[in-house]
Amino acid sequence: MSDGLVFVRRIRRTPYSNRVEQAGVRGYSVYNHMILPKSFGMSVEEAYWHLREHVQLWDVSVQRQVEIIGPDAARLVQWMTPRDLRQAEVGRCYYVPIVDQSGGMLNDPVLLKLADDRYWLSIADSDLLLYVKGLIIGGGFDARAFEPDVNPLAIQGPKAEDLMADLFGAHIRELKFYRYTHIDVLGSRQIIARSGFSSMDGFEIYLADRDLAEPLWDMIMSAGEKYNIAPGGPNQIDRIEGGLLGYGNEMTMDNNPLEMGFGKFCNLTGDIDCIGREALLNIQNAKPKRHIRGVSFGNVACPICSTPWPVYVGAEQVGQITSAIWSPRLKTNVGLSLIDADHWDPGTPVSVTFPDGATHSGTVVVLPFA
Amino acid sequence: MSDGLVFVRRIRRTPYSNRVEQAGVRGYSVYNHMILPKSFGMSVEEAYWHLREHVQLWDVSVQRQVEIIGPDAARLVQWMTPRDLRQAEVGRCYYVPIVDQSGGMLNDPVLLKLADDRYWLSIADSDLLLYVKGLIIGGGFDARAFEPDVNPLAIQGPKAEDLMADLFGAHIRELKFYRYTHIDVLGSRQIIARSGFSSMDGFEIYLADRDLAEPLWDMIMSAGEKYNIAPGGPNQIDRIEGGLLGYGNEMTMDNNPLEMGFGKFCNLTGDIDCIGREALLNIQNAKPKRHIRGVSFGNVACPICSTPWPVYVGAEQVGQITSAIWSPRLKTNVGLSLIDADHWDPGTPVSVTFPDGATHSGTVVVLPFA
Repeated sequence: MSDGLVFVRRIRRTPYSNRVEQAGVRGYSVYNHMILPKSFGMSVEEAYWHLREHVQLWDVSVQRQVEIIGPDAARLVQWMTPRDLRQAEVGRCYYVPIVDQSGGMLNDPVLLKLADDRYWLSIADSDLLLYVKGLIIGGGFDARAFEPDVNPLAIQGPKAEDLMADLFGAHIRELKFYRYTHIDVLGSRQIIARSGFSSMDGFEIYLADRDLAEPLWDMIMSAGEKYNIAPGGPNQIDRIEGGLLGYGNEMTMDNNPLEMGFGKFCNLTGDIDCIGREALLNIQNAKPKRHIRGVSFGNVACPICSTPWPVYVGAEQVGQITSAIWSPRLKTNVGLSLIDADHWDPGTPVSVTFPDGATHSGTVVVLPFA
Repeated sequence: MSDGLVFVRRIRRTPYSNRVEQAGVRGYSVYNHMILPKSFGMSVEEAYWHLREHVQLWDVSVQRQVEIIGPDAARLVQWMTPRDLRQAEVGRCYYVPIVDQSGGMLNDPVLLKLADDRYWLSIADSDLLLYVKGLIIGGGFDARAFEPDVNPLAIQGPKAEDLMADLFGAHIRELKFYRYTHIDVLGSRQIIARSGFSSMDGFEIYLADRDLAEPLWDMIMSAGEKYNIAPGGPNQIDRIEGGLLGYGNEMTMDNNPLEMGFGKFCNLTGDIDCIGREALLNIQNAKPKRHIRGVSFGNVACPICSTPWPVYVGAEQVGQITSAIWSPRLKTNVGLSLIDADHWDPGTPVSVTFPDGATHSGTVVVLPFA
């Protein structure tokens, strides 16, 4: 479709880009005005199997941080999300849907509480900083928001724990999922979290000193040799199988967190003061219209899903697949789709139509794929 | 640097993408979460000469609109920019810097006043919609903001007027720069403005009906044959020579509109109520620190400027080039750079250092390049 993405300053390089190029990067995506390395020497399938067996190093600098700091920071952060943060603790990560007054999703970042008056929102692909600035200016909050120069590296795969323990000490093994702690990286104090955009075990280092980027990359790649480490990026097969939703792909401003399966992160019965609470309550109290599901379909590999593919039950369109790929493990295509009420039961037979008109029969499944 | 941009729904196709592909697109950029066709069969130089002599059709759907509508729309729009909009008229376009409380630029859209209570902001590459939503929610404005499904086409080049007159009537010749009017497009009423991101004459059709996208593309390409029309996109040589600044390239949140040469769009002496007014007044009243300039340098074509290149006077860094390219007309490289006070006089000798360490001597010039 394209023989070249024209790079300009507007689409930012990362502090790891030189190393990524030396490692033989073959393809990028663009995310938060920055380049996201997607593929190196391996095919998507090869990278998928490698990720499930070994460990990979990903330049996920595109996961930009929105830092909110100040006397009103806690009140502002709580106002931004229906998730109840009153008991939020330093050292923990929180997946927080951000919604507007209508309950439409604006981003779905991971929140790191750094102090009672200081937070990082590790964002998906929309300029959440502009929204926060608007709220601060419009609402007169005594808080400041900015993008710190933090460039995360993800270490993903079943051997990630061994590798991190080798590098940073055995205590890292005790770090639980969605917790973070501090480690010594080349003489500096950096945040490491047990998290990452894969269905495997993994860690993310929130490197806050760009001068250490290349030494850290080199240190991890070198120590990782014994674990068969490879450079990589978020893997589409693993992501879809694992039911990991992508902002801009599965959900946009037109979607609410309840239909996306994030009801457990919406505390609508309590008394927290948050934007969109009334709209979400109304949605919750009405008959649900649709819900996110998996669809397995077809026995030959599908093309890339760059525009949604309609999903039918008989002649009725009941959803649209927004991401899909061939699963070499499940021997079927796996897709993600919102499915209308009355049709979302697991096992419901559906058909999927490609842009060229070809139709494949499929089945609704609950996420994640088995 | 890359052999392929991986397309996903998150990076949106446009209603013209099928036609763009049929026309042989060779490279895209990503802008406002959407694909921007950059190059077709011609080299950048060939496209530059063609643009100066003939007419080109550009898919600039990436120029997304933020529609603001409601009783408080006028007050909100005025609050968002230091440009005095009290006499703003329907039928005119206004370049409006959008700044935060510190005077830092968040976007630099073109404003179309559609009615006293209805506006479009035709945005550069940042999610201005999120900022507007934040202001509305935070400030309690009685207004609504959303992205309408409007997909602009640009018709640029000296023969654009003849072509538009053939298609839409001779009255289009009377349309002045930065004015808009309505035309009949395939039985529907659409907005056409005399504007565009080139230094040439040109028009932009703000197509608000995606079903008409392919017929409109075909109609323009067909009628344009006699004018030697070609598909294209914003041309880097023309843009830099013309001193057209790009948000994300020449300016970011770290820059204020005064240093970018937009002082004429900042009414700081009046009594309008706008965000950042005090900060901009302080900047204006202090000794200016730097100003946007052109730098001509070197007598062999420079590489692509994907990270800023430092500009020196002697051993002192006085600026950084953020966009640069070889000008086949001026027989020198042309670059855009903020230049520190005391060094920005036209004719000041400077040197430019590339990432590989090579240094080229150059000269400060006033924009646009002659």
